[in-house]
Amino acid sequence: MRNIRIVIEYDGTDYCGWQIQPNGISIQEVLENTIAGITQEPVRLTGSGRTDAGVHALNQVANFMTHSSIPCSNLLKGINSLLPCDISVKEVRDVDENFHARYSAKSKAYLYRINNCSVRSALGYRYAWHISESINIETMDESSRVLVGTHDFSSFCASDGDSENHIRTVTSIGISGVAGGSIEVHVEANGFLRYMVRNIVGTLVDIGKRKITADEFRQIFEARDRTKAGITAPPQGLYLKEVKYI
Amino acid sequence: MRNIRIVIEYDGTDYCGWQIQPNGISIQEVLENTIAGITQEPVRLTGSGRTDAGVHALNQVANFMTHSSIPCSNLLKGINSLLPCDISVKEVRDVDENFHARYSAKSKAYLYRINNCSVRSALGYRYAWHISESINIETMDESSRVLVGTHDFSSFCASDGDSENHIRTVTSIGISGVAGGSIEVHVEANGFLRYMVRNIVGTLVDIGKRKITADEFRQIFEARDRTKAGITAPPQGLYLKEVKYI
Repeated sequence: MRNIRIVIEYDGTDYCGWQIQPNGISIQEVLENTIAGITQEPVRLTGSGRTDAGVHALNQVANFMTHSSIPCSNLLKGINSLLPCDISVKEVRDVDENFHARYSAKSKAYLYRINNCSVRSALGYRYAWHISESINIETMDESSRVLVGTHDFSSFCASDGDSENHIRTVTSIGISGVAGGSIEVHVEANGFLRYMVRNIVGTLVDIGKRKITADEFRQIFEARDRTKAGITAPPQGLYLKEVKYI
Repeated sequence: MRNIRIVIEYDGTDYCGWQIQPNGISIQEVLENTIAGITQEPVRLTGSGRTDAGVHALNQVANFMTHSSIPCSNLLKGINSLLPCDISVKEVRDVDENFHARYSAKSKAYLYRINNCSVRSALGYRYAWHISESINIETMDESSRVLVGTHDFSSFCASDGDSENHIRTVTSIGISGVAGGSIEVHVEANGFLRYMVRNIVGTLVDIGKRKITADEFRQIFEARDRTKAGITAPPQGLYLKEVKYI
């Protein structure tokens, strides 16, 4: 049997998220049905991890086993010809039978886009968090450095999260852009808790708006208590940018 | 009575176009209802011109008369607070009673975006025409220059267009970008026939794909016959960029 690795880009706006759910259409479900239509056999797709409702991906990675002998380039064309406009497969290739999109992943990188303009933009409202107040990007960037390293990220996990281990290693984080323009938050880690990026961004924005200080941000982080942190930034600004396997 | 001039940005994807129509929701209708909700009186909005279904605007201009005494800055905030995400008002100001968004306009500029990549992009599918074949941008750009000046644009009008005068003055046109990446067509004229930009782009792309030569493009243009030209480029790539009044 072949093990096929695919890289997927999607606009998550109209989906309930990556993972198949009883209520709502998921990216995984659309992809599985489309691939099955090409390979003519049931397909079970393993993603590198979930993305939540409304969250996008530039390079989500997934794999599936198949008896099909269709060459990868034809799979790519065939799948894309049947997918809706808001999902596209960027790469299809045969990989070792041991490759597992989730367990083999070493790290993931996320991008969060903020549109910092006095008037919200109608074009691109699906692709960024609009913040009209003036934001101090430098303070956000400097304050974020405290997150780098191996830490307990309980302050930034989902409030309804389960009792799993909240220790993660953030390898890099940086905020760049122009106040009054487009701002990007880039963060990479060996793994992420649910809502972790959006909770970090929501709290960093409180620094940017001068509602809390860098010291208070550090205290929130060290409290390991979700109720101390800021709001969960909305999903439309978040992009799964890359999944690294080596 | 006050005459108020507004500048509007919109994502036209989910609308039947600018102008009120019996079937489907128009940008004009949404704006009129929203403004009336703020000024508490019926509003008739005059746009600089129509945009077709699915076409976007970066800076559409419109005006309306009102008895309301609400300051412009409050109108801006109030209107934006009630508008859907895909329409926003960027500017509101009082103008001379003689200002008419359509009749006072001296010229208009449109932008057409092409996404020239082997695999279509899921993110941004609403905002560009995806063309996977290799395109020669330089030849398109050079060939387009024949359109500059005062000419009969019958070859590029809507096939169901009425019998109006087809003479227009194109003041500038240019194609820039990277083959295999993002390509932009910028065109400015004293006025445009229906589908004119999309028909010009559709035919220029035939040059880019080497389906027709620059000479053949000139012949198509000079034939003043819509049936000679290429396809109408799809609406999602088109943006009304600017309306000039001086």
